[in-house]
Amino acid sequence: MSSDFDLDEYQRVDGITLRAELAICAIANGSLVVLMMEREAEPFKGWLALPGGYLRGDRDLDATAHVILAQLGMYPCEPRLVGVCSKPGRDPKARGVSATYAAIVELDDLEVRLEQDKRFRIVTAIQANDDICDLSLEGHPVAAGYDHAAMIAKAIAYLRQMLENSLIAFEFLPPAFTLLELQQVHEVILGEAVDKVRFRKRMLARIFPDGSRLRATGREKLTGGRPAKLFELQRN
Amino acid sequence: MSSDFDLDEYQRVDGITLRAELAICAIANGSLVVLMMEREAEPFKGWLALPGGYLRGDRDLDATAHVILAQLGMYPCEPRLVGVCSKPGRDPKARGVSATYAAIVELDDLEVRLEQDKRFRIVTAIQANDDICDLSLEGHPVAAGYDHAAMIAKAIAYLRQMLENSLIAFEFLPPAFTLLELQQVHEVILGEAVDKVRFRKRMLARIFPDGSRLRATGREKLTGGRPAKLFELQRN
Repeated sequence: MSSDFDLDEYQRVDGITLRAELAICAIANGSLVVLMMEREAEPFKGWLALPGGYLRGDRDLDATAHVILAQLGMYPCEPRLVGVCSKPGRDPKARGVSATYAAIVELDDLEVRLEQDKRFRIVTAIQANDDICDLSLEGHPVAAGYDHAAMIAKAIAYLRQMLENSLIAFEFLPPAFTLLELQQVHEVILGEAVDKVRFRKRMLARIFPDGSRLRATGREKLTGGRPAKLFELQRN
Repeated sequence: MSSDFDLDEYQRVDGITLRAELAICAIANGSLVVLMMEREAEPFKGWLALPGGYLRGDRDLDATAHVILAQLGMYPCEPRLVGVCSKPGRDPKARGVSATYAAIVELDDLEVRLEQDKRFRIVTAIQANDDICDLSLEGHPVAAGYDHAAMIAKAIAYLRQMLENSLIAFEFLPPAFTLLELQQVHEVILGEAVDKVRFRKRMLARIFPDGSRLRATGREKLTGGRPAKLFELQRN
Protein backbone atom coordinates (compact mmCIF):
# COMPACT_ATOMS: atom_id res chain seq x y z
CA MET A 1 0.00 0.00 0.00
CA SER A 2 1.29 3.39 -0.99
CA SER A 3 1.54 6.42 1.23
CA ASP A 4 -1.69 7.85 -0.07
CA PHE A 5 -4.94 5.96 -0.13
CA ASP A 6 -4.18 4.00 -3.26
CA LEU A 7 -6.34 0.94 -3.13
CA ASP A 8 -5.33 -0.27 -6.52
CA GLU A 9 -1.86 0.97 -7.19
CA TYR A 10 -0.58 -2.37 -8.43
CA GLN A 11 -3.57 -2.97 -10.64
CA ARG A 12 -3.59 0.27 -12.51
CA VAL A 13 -4.35 0.24 -16.19
CA ASP A 14 -1.67 0.99 -18.72
CA GLY A 15 -2.34 2.44 -22.11
CA ILE A 16 -5.32 4.60 -21.22
CA THR A 17 -6.27 7.03 -23.97
CA LEU A 18 -7.79 10.26 -22.79
CA ARG A 19 -9.96 12.50 -24.95
CA ALA A 20 -12.14 15.56 -24.74
CA GLU A 21 -15.49 15.27 -26.58
CA LEU A 22 -17.69 18.26 -27.24
CA ALA A 23 -21.46 18.54 -27.18
CA ILE A 24 -21.74 21.83 -29.09
CA CYS A 25 -25.33 23.01 -28.59
CA ALA A 26 -27.64 25.57 -30.14
CA ILE A 27 -31.39 26.04 -30.37
CA ALA A 28 -33.07 25.55 -33.76
CA ASN A 29 -36.83 25.74 -34.33
CA GLY A 30 -37.67 25.16 -30.69
CA SER A 31 -35.34 22.18 -30.26
CA LEU A 32 -31.91 21.66 -28.81
CA VAL A 33 -29.48 20.66 -31.56
CA VAL A 34 -25.96 19.29 -31.31
CA LEU A 35 -23.10 19.16 -33.82
CA MET A 36 -22.11 15.60 -34.78
CA MET A 37 -19.92 13.99 -37.43
CA GLU A 38 -20.37 10.91 -39.56
CA ARG A 39 -17.54 8.51 -38.87
CA GLU A 40 -15.60 7.32 -41.90
CA ALA A 41 -13.65 4.50 -40.22
CA GLU A 42 -14.25 1.62 -37.86
CA PRO A 43 -15.31 1.34 -35.14
CA PHE A 44 -18.81 2.75 -35.66
CA LYS A 45 -18.17 3.50 -39.35
CA GLY A 46 -21.13 5.46 -40.74
CA TRP A 47 -22.43 6.29 -37.26
CA LEU A 48 -22.61 9.76 -35.80
CA ALA A 49 -20.16 10.87 -33.11
CA LEU A 50 -19.29 14.07 -31.27
CA PRO A 51 -16.21 16.04 -32.36
CA GLY A 52 -13.29 15.50 -30.00
CA GLY A 53 -9.57 15.08 -29.73
CA TYR A 54 -6.87 13.32 -27.75
CA LEU A 55 -5.10 14.85 -24.77
CA ARG A 56 -1.61 16.02 -25.72
CA GLY A 57 1.40 16.14 -23.47
CA ASP A 58 1.54 19.93 -23.31
CA ARG A 59 -2.15 20.68 -22.66
CA ASP A 60 -4.77 19.91 -20.09
CA LEU A 61 -8.26 18.73 -20.97
CA ASP A 62 -9.85 22.18 -20.74
CA ALA A 63 -7.23 23.51 -23.17
CA THR A 64 -7.89 20.54 -25.47
CA ALA A 65 -11.59 21.44 -25.54
CA HIS A 66 -10.74 25.09 -26.25
CA VAL A 67 -8.42 24.13 -29.13
CA ILE A 68 -11.06 21.91 -30.73
CA LEU A 69 -13.64 24.70 -30.52
CA ALA A 70 -11.16 27.14 -32.05
CA GLN A 71 -10.37 24.71 -34.87
CA LEU A 72 -14.08 24.39 -35.52
CA GLY A 73 -14.28 28.19 -35.79
CA MET A 74 -16.28 28.44 -32.58
CA TYR A 75 -14.04 30.68 -30.58
CA PRO A 76 -14.70 32.36 -28.16
CA CYS A 77 -17.15 30.07 -26.44
CA GLU A 78 -16.72 28.46 -23.06
CA PRO A 79 -16.54 24.66 -22.87
CA ARG A 80 -17.92 23.30 -19.57
CA LEU A 81 -17.10 19.89 -18.17
CA VAL A 82 -20.32 17.88 -17.80
CA GLY A 83 -19.00 14.40 -17.09
CA VAL A 84 -16.32 11.79 -17.63
CA CYS A 85 -17.11 8.54 -19.45
CA SER A 86 -14.78 5.73 -18.44
CA LYS A 87 -16.70 2.44 -18.55
CA PRO A 88 -14.58 -0.55 -19.56
CA GLY A 89 -15.35 -1.55 -23.14
CA ARG A 90 -16.83 1.79 -24.20
CA ASP A 91 -14.10 2.14 -26.84
CA PRO A 92 -13.44 -1.12 -28.71
CA LYS A 93 -9.87 -0.06 -29.56
CA ALA A 94 -8.48 0.97 -26.19
CA ARG A 95 -9.20 1.64 -22.53
CA GLY A 96 -10.55 5.01 -23.53
CA VAL A 97 -11.65 7.70 -21.12
CA SER A 98 -13.47 10.78 -22.41
CA ALA A 99 -14.13 14.03 -20.63
CA THR A 100 -17.33 15.51 -22.04
CA TYR A 101 -17.81 19.24 -22.44
CA ALA A 102 -20.90 21.27 -23.30
CA ALA A 103 -20.53 24.45 -25.35
CA ILE A 104 -23.23 26.87 -26.48
CA VAL A 105 -22.95 28.48 -29.90
CA GLU A 106 -25.22 30.27 -32.36
CA LEU A 107 -27.05 28.17 -34.91
CA ASP A 108 -25.23 30.08 -37.68
CA ASP A 109 -21.90 28.73 -36.41
CA LEU A 110 -23.17 25.19 -36.82
CA GLU A 111 -24.56 25.85 -40.28
CA VAL A 112 -21.25 27.31 -41.47
CA ARG A 113 -19.52 24.11 -40.36
CA LEU A 114 -21.98 22.00 -42.35
CA GLU A 115 -21.25 23.92 -45.51
CA GLN A 116 -17.51 23.52 -45.06
CA ASP A 117 -17.27 19.84 -44.21
CA LYS A 118 -19.66 17.20 -45.47
CA ARG A 119 -19.03 14.96 -42.44
CA PHE A 120 -20.90 17.30 -40.09
CA ARG A 121 -24.58 16.97 -39.12
CA ILE A 122 -26.92 19.06 -37.00
CA VAL A 123 -28.76 16.56 -34.83
CA THR A 124 -31.84 17.24 -32.70
CA ALA A 125 -31.58 15.94 -29.14
CA ILE A 126 -34.63 15.20 -27.01
CA GLN A 127 -33.80 14.33 -23.42
CA ALA A 128 -35.84 11.47 -21.99
CA ASN A 129 -34.16 11.50 -18.58
CA ASP A 130 -30.73 12.23 -17.13
CA ASP A 131 -29.16 9.18 -18.77
CA ILE A 132 -31.01 8.72 -22.04
CA CYS A 133 -31.32 11.04 -25.00
CA ASP A 134 -33.11 10.44 -28.31
CA LEU A 135 -31.41 11.80 -31.40
CA SER A 136 -33.00 12.62 -34.72
CA LEU A 137 -31.70 13.83 -38.06
CA GLU A 138 -34.12 15.53 -40.44
CA GLY A 139 -37.04 13.96 -38.59
CA HIS A 140 -35.66 10.43 -38.50
CA PRO A 141 -34.29 8.74 -35.38
CA VAL A 142 -30.52 8.15 -35.51
CA ALA A 143 -28.11 6.31 -33.26
CA ALA A 144 -24.78 7.65 -32.03
CA GLY A 145 -21.52 5.71 -32.00
CA TYR A 146 -19.70 4.86 -28.78
CA ASP A 147 -21.61 6.23 -25.75
CA HIS A 148 -22.05 9.63 -27.32
CA ALA A 149 -25.84 9.68 -26.84
CA ALA A 150 -25.20 9.32 -23.10
CA MET A 151 -22.69 12.17 -23.34
CA ILE A 152 -25.32 14.43 -24.90
CA ALA A 153 -27.71 13.39 -22.12
CA LYS A 154 -25.07 14.50 -19.58
CA ALA A 155 -24.74 17.83 -21.38
CA ILE A 156 -28.51 18.44 -21.29
CA ALA A 157 -28.70 17.41 -17.62
CA TYR A 158 -25.99 19.99 -16.95
CA LEU A 159 -27.86 22.73 -18.86
CA ARG A 160 -31.02 21.94 -16.85
CA GLN A 161 -29.14 22.13 -13.60
CA MET A 162 -27.63 25.48 -14.56
CA LEU A 163 -30.87 27.00 -15.85
CA GLU A 164 -32.10 28.13 -12.45
CA ASN A 165 -28.82 29.02 -10.83
CA SER A 166 -26.77 30.72 -13.50
CA LEU A 167 -26.99 32.99 -16.51
CA ILE A 168 -26.73 30.06 -18.91
CA ALA A 169 -30.14 30.66 -20.55
CA PHE A 170 -28.88 34.02 -21.83
CA GLU A 171 -26.02 32.38 -23.71
CA PHE A 172 -28.64 31.03 -26.11
CA LEU A 173 -29.95 34.56 -26.76
CA PRO A 174 -28.73 37.79 -28.37
CA PRO A 175 -28.02 40.74 -26.00
CA ALA A 176 -31.59 42.04 -26.46
CA PHE A 177 -34.42 39.49 -26.48
CA THR A 178 -38.15 39.17 -25.89
CA LEU A 179 -39.63 37.42 -22.86
CA LEU A 180 -41.11 34.86 -25.24
CA GLU A 181 -37.63 34.06 -26.56
CA LEU A 182 -36.36 33.64 -22.99
CA GLN A 183 -39.33 31.40 -22.20
CA GLN A 184 -38.64 29.28 -25.28
CA VAL A 185 -35.01 28.73 -24.19
CA HIS A 186 -36.30 27.46 -20.85
CA GLU A 187 -38.86 25.21 -22.50
CA VAL A 188 -36.32 23.72 -24.89
CA ILE A 189 -33.80 22.94 -22.15
CA LEU A 190 -36.40 21.70 -19.67
CA GLY A 191 -38.18 19.72 -22.37
CA GLU A 192 -41.60 20.88 -21.19
CA ALA A 193 -44.00 23.82 -21.44
CA VAL A 194 -43.76 26.62 -18.91
CA ASP A 195 -46.70 28.72 -17.65
CA LYS A 196 -46.35 32.04 -19.47
CA VAL A 197 -47.79 34.37 -16.79
CA ARG A 198 -45.86 32.82 -13.91
CA PHE A 199 -42.66 32.62 -15.94
CA ARG A 200 -42.78 36.34 -16.84
CA LYS A 201 -43.59 37.38 -13.30
CA ARG A 202 -40.76 35.26 -11.92
CA MET A 203 -38.18 36.46 -14.46
CA LEU A 204 -39.06 40.16 -14.06
CA ALA A 205 -38.78 39.87 -10.27
CA ARG A 206 -35.60 37.86 -10.32
CA ILE A 207 -32.14 38.95 -9.28
CA PHE A 208 -29.69 36.75 -11.14
CA PRO A 209 -26.55 35.24 -9.57
CA ASP A 210 -24.35 38.15 -10.68
CA GLY A 211 -26.79 40.71 -9.25
CA SER A 212 -28.28 41.64 -12.62
CA ARG A 213 -31.98 41.94 -13.52
CA LEU A 214 -34.07 42.06 -16.65
CA ARG A 215 -34.74 45.59 -17.92
CA ALA A 216 -36.83 46.78 -20.86
CA THR A 217 -34.58 48.35 -23.48
CA GLY A 218 -37.38 50.63 -24.69
CA ARG A 219 -37.09 48.98 -28.10
CA GLU A 220 -39.44 46.47 -29.65
CA LYS A 221 -39.08 43.47 -31.89
CA LEU A 222 -41.42 43.07 -34.85
CA THR A 223 -43.21 39.75 -34.70
CA GLY A 224 -46.02 38.30 -36.74
CA GLY A 225 -48.55 39.84 -34.35
CA ARG A 226 -48.06 42.65 -31.86
CA PRO A 227 -44.51 44.04 -31.54
CA ALA A 228 -42.80 42.52 -28.47
CA LYS A 229 -40.74 44.45 -25.92
CA LEU A 230 -37.02 43.80 -26.05
CA PHE A 231 -35.27 43.16 -22.74
CA GLU A 232 -31.65 43.02 -21.66
CA LEU A 233 -29.78 41.86 -18.60
CA GLN A 234 -28.48 44.78 -16.57
CA ARG A 235 -26.49 45.08 -13.39
CA ASN A 236 -28.16 47.07 -10.63
CA MET B 1 -6.55 13.03 -39.97
CA SER B 2 -8.80 10.40 -38.55
CA SER B 3 -12.46 9.92 -39.33
CA ASP B 4 -13.57 11.83 -36.30
CA PHE B 5 -12.36 15.28 -35.38
CA ASP B 6 -9.07 14.14 -33.91
CA LEU B 7 -6.76 17.09 -34.08
CA ASP B 8 -3.99 15.39 -32.24
CA GLU B 9 -4.25 11.72 -32.94
CA TYR B 10 -0.57 11.29 -33.67
CA GLN B 11 0.55 13.34 -30.72
CA ARG B 12 -1.40 11.60 -28.06
CA VAL B 13 0.22 10.95 -24.73
CA ASP B 14 1.18 7.44 -23.72
CA GLY B 15 1.42 6.29 -20.16
CA ILE B 16 -1.29 8.50 -18.69
CA THR B 17 -2.26 7.49 -15.15
CA LEU B 18 -5.86 8.14 -14.23
CA ARG B 19 -7.11 8.49 -10.67
CA ALA B 20 -10.21 9.41 -8.71
CA GLU B 21 -9.56 11.75 -5.76
CA LEU B 22 -12.19 12.41 -3.11
CA ALA B 23 -13.02 15.62 -1.27
CA ILE B 24 -15.02 14.04 1.56
CA CYS B 25 -16.82 16.92 3.27
CA ALA B 26 -18.67 17.49 6.53
CA ILE B 27 -19.53 20.50 8.66
CA ALA B 28 -17.75 20.91 12.02
CA ASN B 29 -18.21 23.92 14.31
CA GLY B 30 -19.55 26.14 11.58
CA SER B 31 -16.82 25.29 9.06
CA LEU B 32 -16.54 23.02 6.10
CA VAL B 33 -14.01 20.26 6.80
CA VAL B 34 -12.39 17.76 4.45
CA LEU B 35 -10.66 14.43 5.07
CA MET B 36 -7.00 14.45 4.11
CA MET B 37 -4.01 12.15 4.65
CA GLU B 38 -0.40 12.82 5.49
CA ARG B 39 1.80 11.43 2.74
CA GLU B 40 4.54 9.07 3.85
CA ALA B 41 6.50 8.96 0.59
CA GLU B 42 7.80 11.31 -2.07
CA PRO B 43 6.60 13.31 -3.90
CA PHE B 44 5.09 15.65 -1.31
CA LYS B 45 6.29 13.55 1.63
CA GLY B 46 4.81 14.94 4.85
CA TRP B 47 2.25 17.03 2.95
CA LEU B 48 -1.51 16.53 3.09
CA ALA B 49 -3.37 14.98 0.16
CA LEU B 50 -6.89 13.78 -0.61
CA PRO B 51 -7.62 10.05 -0.48
CA GLY B 52 -7.84 8.56 -3.95
CA GLY B 53 -7.06 5.56 -6.08
CA TYR B 54 -6.05 4.53 -9.57
CA LEU B 55 -8.52 3.53 -12.25
CA ARG B 56 -8.58 -0.25 -12.70
CA GLY B 57 -9.31 -2.10 -15.90
CA ASP B 58 -12.66 -3.45 -14.75
CA ARG B 59 -14.15 -0.28 -13.27
CA ASP B 60 -15.09 3.19 -14.38
CA LEU B 61 -14.16 6.32 -12.44
CA ASP B 62 -17.51 6.58 -10.66
CA ALA B 63 -17.12 3.00 -9.46
CA THR B 64 -13.56 3.76 -8.35
CA ALA B 65 -14.85 6.65 -6.23
CA HIS B 66 -17.57 4.39 -4.76
CA VAL B 67 -15.03 1.69 -3.88
CA ILE B 68 -12.74 4.16 -2.13
CA LEU B 69 -15.65 5.52 -0.09
CA ALA B 70 -16.69 1.99 0.84
CA GLN B 71 -13.11 1.12 1.88
CA LEU B 72 -13.09 4.22 4.04
CA GLY B 73 -16.29 3.00 5.70
CA MET B 74 -18.31 5.81 4.15
CA TYR B 75 -20.89 3.83 2.30
CA PRO B 76 -23.60 4.71 1.30
CA CYS B 77 -22.77 8.22 0.19
CA GLU B 78 -22.88 9.60 -3.33
CA PRO B 79 -19.63 10.79 -4.91
CA ARG B 80 -20.21 13.64 -7.40
CA LEU B 81 -17.80 14.59 -10.13
CA VAL B 82 -16.71 18.21 -9.63
CA GLY B 83 -13.81 18.51 -12.06
CA VAL B 84 -10.88 16.89 -13.82
CA CYS B 85 -7.33 18.03 -13.15
CA SER B 86 -5.02 17.34 -16.06
CA LYS B 87 -2.40 20.09 -16.24
CA PRO B 88 1.00 18.90 -17.50
CA GLY B 89 3.46 18.62 -14.60
CA ARG B 90 0.85 18.39 -11.84
CA ASP B 91 2.17 14.96 -10.87
CA PRO B 92 6.00 14.82 -10.85
CA LYS B 93 5.98 11.05 -11.45
CA ALA B 94 3.72 10.69 -14.48
CA ARG B 95 1.29 12.42 -16.85
CA GLY B 96 -1.37 12.05 -14.20
CA VAL B 97 -5.00 12.97 -14.67
CA SER B 98 -7.34 13.04 -11.67
CA ALA B 99 -11.10 13.13 -11.64
CA THR B 100 -12.19 14.91 -8.47
CA TYR B 101 -15.31 13.90 -6.58
CA ALA B 102 -17.13 15.57 -3.70
CA ALA B 103 -18.89 13.43 -1.10
CA ILE B 104 -20.85 14.55 1.94
CA VAL B 105 -20.62 12.52 5.16
CA GLU B 106 -21.35 12.99 8.84
CA LEU B 107 -18.59 14.38 11.01
CA ASP B 108 -18.69 11.16 13.06
CA ASP B 109 -17.61 9.18 10.00
CA LEU B 110 -14.52 11.36 9.66
CA GLU B 111 -13.69 11.08 13.34
CA VAL B 112 -13.90 7.29 13.28
CA ARG B 113 -11.37 7.29 10.41
CA LEU B 114 -8.97 9.44 12.43
CA GLU B 115 -9.06 7.00 15.31
CA GLN B 116 -8.38 4.05 13.02
CA ASP B 117 -5.53 5.40 10.93
CA LYS B 118 -2.99 7.92 12.13
CA ARG B 119 -2.37 9.24 8.60
CA PHE B 120 -5.79 10.92 8.42
CA ARG B 121 -6.49 14.57 9.28
CA ILE B 122 -9.68 16.65 9.40
CA VAL B 123 -8.79 19.87 7.63
CA THR B 124 -10.84 23.07 7.62
CA ALA B 125 -11.36 24.57 4.16
CA ILE B 126 -12.19 28.24 3.60
CA GLN B 127 -12.98 29.12 0.02
CA ALA B 128 -11.45 32.36 -1.19
CA ASN B 129 -12.83 32.11 -4.71
CA ASP B 130 -13.65 29.41 -7.25
CA ASP B 131 -10.00 28.49 -7.75
CA ILE B 132 -8.32 29.09 -4.40
CA CYS B 133 -9.00 27.52 -1.04
CA ASP B 134 -7.19 28.08 2.25
CA LEU B 135 -6.68 25.03 4.43
CA SER B 136 -6.06 24.94 8.16
CA LEU B 137 -5.34 22.20 10.67
CA GLU B 138 -6.05 22.87 14.35
CA GLY B 139 -6.03 26.59 13.67
CA HIS B 140 -2.78 26.65 11.69
CA PRO B 141 -2.57 27.15 7.92
CA VAL B 142 -1.44 24.04 6.03
CA ALA B 143 -0.52 23.38 2.41
CA ALA B 144 -1.77 20.47 0.33
CA GLY B 145 0.40 18.34 -1.93
CA TYR B 146 -0.13 18.22 -5.70
CA ASP B 147 -3.01 20.49 -6.75
CA HIS B 148 -5.29 19.13 -4.05
CA ALA B 149 -6.14 22.58 -2.65
CA ALA B 150 -7.48 23.49 -6.09
CA MET B 151 -9.48 20.24 -6.07
CA ILE B 152 -11.09 21.19 -2.75
CA ALA B 153 -11.86 24.62 -4.25
CA LYS B 154 -13.62 22.87 -7.13
CA ALA B 155 -15.64 20.78 -4.66
CA ILE B 156 -16.77 23.86 -2.74
CA ALA B 157 -17.62 25.72 -5.97
CA TYR B 158 -19.78 22.71 -6.87
CA LEU B 159 -21.54 22.72 -3.48
CA ARG B 160 -22.28 26.45 -3.87
CA GLN B 161 -23.69 25.94 -7.31
CA MET B 162 -25.93 23.13 -6.07
CA LEU B 163 -27.12 24.94 -2.96
CA GLU B 164 -29.89 26.87 -4.69
CA ASN B 165 -30.95 24.31 -7.22
CA SER B 166 -30.86 20.98 -5.47
CA LEU B 167 -31.45 19.30 -2.12
CA ILE B 168 -27.73 19.22 -1.36
CA ALA B 169 -27.99 21.37 1.79
CA PHE B 170 -30.11 18.66 3.42
CA GLU B 171 -27.37 16.08 3.00
CA PHE B 172 -25.46 17.93 5.69
CA LEU B 173 -28.43 17.62 8.09
CA PRO B 174 -30.30 14.88 9.96
CA PRO B 175 -33.87 14.12 8.76
CA ALA B 176 -35.32 16.59 11.28
CA PHE B 177 -33.52 19.92 11.75
CA THR B 178 -34.08 23.46 12.93
CA LEU B 179 -34.20 26.44 10.57
CA LEU B 180 -31.06 27.76 12.28
CA GLU B 181 -29.24 24.53 11.41
CA LEU B 182 -30.36 24.86 7.78
CA GLN B 183 -29.22 28.49 7.75
CA GLN B 184 -25.83 27.50 9.16
CA VAL B 185 -25.33 24.95 6.36
CA HIS B 186 -25.99 27.69 3.82
CA GLU B 187 -23.63 30.09 5.58
CA VAL B 188 -20.83 27.53 5.76
CA ILE B 189 -21.07 26.61 2.08
CA LEU B 190 -21.54 30.19 0.87
CA GLY B 191 -18.80 31.43 3.18
CA GLU B 192 -20.89 34.42 4.28
CA ALA B 193 -23.68 35.39 6.66
CA VAL B 194 -27.29 35.14 5.51
CA ASP B 195 -30.13 37.44 6.64
CA LYS B 196 -32.11 35.33 9.13
CA VAL B 197 -35.61 36.75 8.48
CA ARG B 198 -35.33 36.64 4.69
CA PHE B 199 -33.74 33.20 4.75
CA ARG B 200 -36.57 31.72 6.85
CA LYS B 201 -39.26 33.34 4.74
CA ARG B 202 -37.64 32.11 1.54
CA MET B 203 -37.10 28.55 2.79
CA LEU B 204 -40.63 28.20 4.20
CA ALA B 205 -42.14 29.41 0.91
CA ARG B 206 -39.88 27.33 -1.26
CA ILE B 207 -40.82 24.33 -3.35
CA PHE B 208 -37.66 22.29 -3.80
CA PRO B 209 -36.63 20.67 -7.11
CA ASP B 210 -38.29 17.35 -6.23
CA GLY B 211 -41.56 19.11 -5.30
CA SER B 212 -41.01 18.85 -1.55
CA ARG B 213 -41.39 21.63 1.02
CA LEU B 214 -40.33 22.27 4.60
CA ARG B 215 -42.90 21.17 7.18
CA ALA B 216 -42.85 21.51 10.94
CA THR B 217 -42.65 18.07 12.56
CA GLY B 218 -44.49 19.29 15.68
CA ARG B 219 -41.40 18.37 17.72
CA GLU B 220 -38.83 20.70 19.20
CA LYS B 221 -35.12 20.60 19.76
CA LEU B 222 -33.72 21.69 23.11
CA THR B 223 -31.17 24.42 22.66
CA GLY B 224 -29.35 26.64 25.13
CA GLY B 225 -32.19 29.17 24.95
CA ARG B 226 -35.74 28.67 23.70
CA PRO B 227 -36.57 25.24 22.26
CA ALA B 228 -36.45 25.41 18.43
CA LYS B 229 -39.03 23.88 16.09
CA LEU B 230 -37.85 20.83 14.17
CA PHE B 231 -38.59 20.74 10.45
CA GLU B 232 -38.45 18.04 7.82
CA LEU B 233 -38.59 17.91 4.05
CA GLN B 234 -41.91 16.53 2.84
CA ARG B 235 -43.39 15.88 -0.56
CA ASN B 236 -46.67 17.65 -1.25
